[in-house]
Amino acid sequence: MNFIDKLLNISRKNESLLCIGLDPNPDLMPKVGILEFNKAIINATCDLVCAYKPNLAFYEALGIEGLTILEKTVEHIPADMPIIGDAKRGDIGNTAKAYAKALFSTLGFDAATVNPYLGFDSIEPFIGYQDKGVFILCRTSNRGASDFQALRCLGGLSLYEMVAHKAKEWNVYGNIGLVVGATYPEELKKVRSICPEMCLLIPGI
Amino acid sequence: MNFIDKLLNISRKNESLLCIGLDPNPDLMPKVGILEFNKAIINATCDLVCAYKPNLAFYEALGIEGLTILEKTVEHIPADMPIIGDAKRGDIGNTAKAYAKALFSTLGFDAATVNPYLGFDSIEPFIGYQDKGVFILCRTSNRGASDFQALRCLGGLSLYEMVAHKAKEWNVYGNIGLVVGATYPEELKKVRSICPEMCLLIPGI
Repeated sequence: MNFIDKLLNISRKNESLLCIGLDPNPDLMPKVGILEFNKAIINATCDLVCAYKPNLAFYEALGIEGLTILEKTVEHIPADMPIIGDAKRGDIGNTAKAYAKALFSTLGFDAATVNPYLGFDSIEPFIGYQDKGVFILCRTSNRGASDFQALRCLGGLSLYEMVAHKAKEWNVYGNIGLVVGATYPEELKKVRSICPEMCLLIPGI
Repeated sequence: MNFIDKLLNISRKNESLLCIGLDPNPDLMPKVGILEFNKAIINATCDLVCAYKPNLAFYEALGIEGLTILEKTVEHIPADMPIIGDAKRGDIGNTAKAYAKALFSTLGFDAATVNPYLGFDSIEPFIGYQDKGVFILCRTSNRGASDFQALRCLGGLSLYEMVAHKAKEWNVYGNIGLVVGATYPEELKKVRSICPEMCLLIPGI
């Protein structure tokens, strides 16, 4: 089953549009094992959400132990629940191919986040996995997002709007989504009007 | 010793400005173990180069085994040789902090590549490691680079030129560099004129 169908199925079953991040930050959590912490969250919420989204940074910071915890966390998530690998990767063609393999094949995520700065050939290997979802960063939720994403281009559109237009153009397999922060509701409205049908991942709540 | 001094020392000793990528792609290499392959390259070139640059994608594609190979490759590189972790990370503040820890502390790289799309707070945790080098993607060597990096902004500058200007402004600790593809010599000239003193990482040869 492809990512979008899997997402729609669980969304209907659980009557939910909520995606829960699994970003274990030892500085901000109780003194328990990270795998136990993740399992407790999953057990308590898996009938209430439509996806989980582990952010790879927090696992990579722990080295090989972290990667093991990530793999076991993924295994613990019910099979009908989509998992979005929040990795924000972006690299040139051949390398992007290796990243897509790492996220979709080696780690087995149903979807991944990617960074658009390197352009189409950095996204292409991801969307080539037609049963997987690919969320392109558009207008992120952080303060620094304005440094470049809000830059006005010749023609009048901002960079994040140009990204939304390109995402629409590139969406030949119907598996592209966009990341738009909940912290920028006006920009969210603009992105939705450019891509009325596209799946949006909206962090920042 | 900080990254820039380490780079200058080995560059003078080896009379070299060459950085060698360690991007083991099983489809393009002889049928030998990846660690042996990397070691053979390092042994044959460590008196001829000024840095090594493993790209994390190729190790991540191999899962935990790949991460083990990466760690052992890093251990095999002579201690006076700077290692650039080519990871192109970019995420919001707290997550960027975890990525910086992963690259500089857990994996022990002397420098890393980062993606500017999320703005200053995604770069700040990296430059906070003042003895490490931080190469911001500016004008990358691939074809798709033109999709967004070449967009002309109001005021007349292209996006990659805006990135170069911001990098200069953010370079308070003197540890920022830029990635500019050798495949775009005209753009390289422009970046050099914006940042005449900055360390440039120039892939694409």
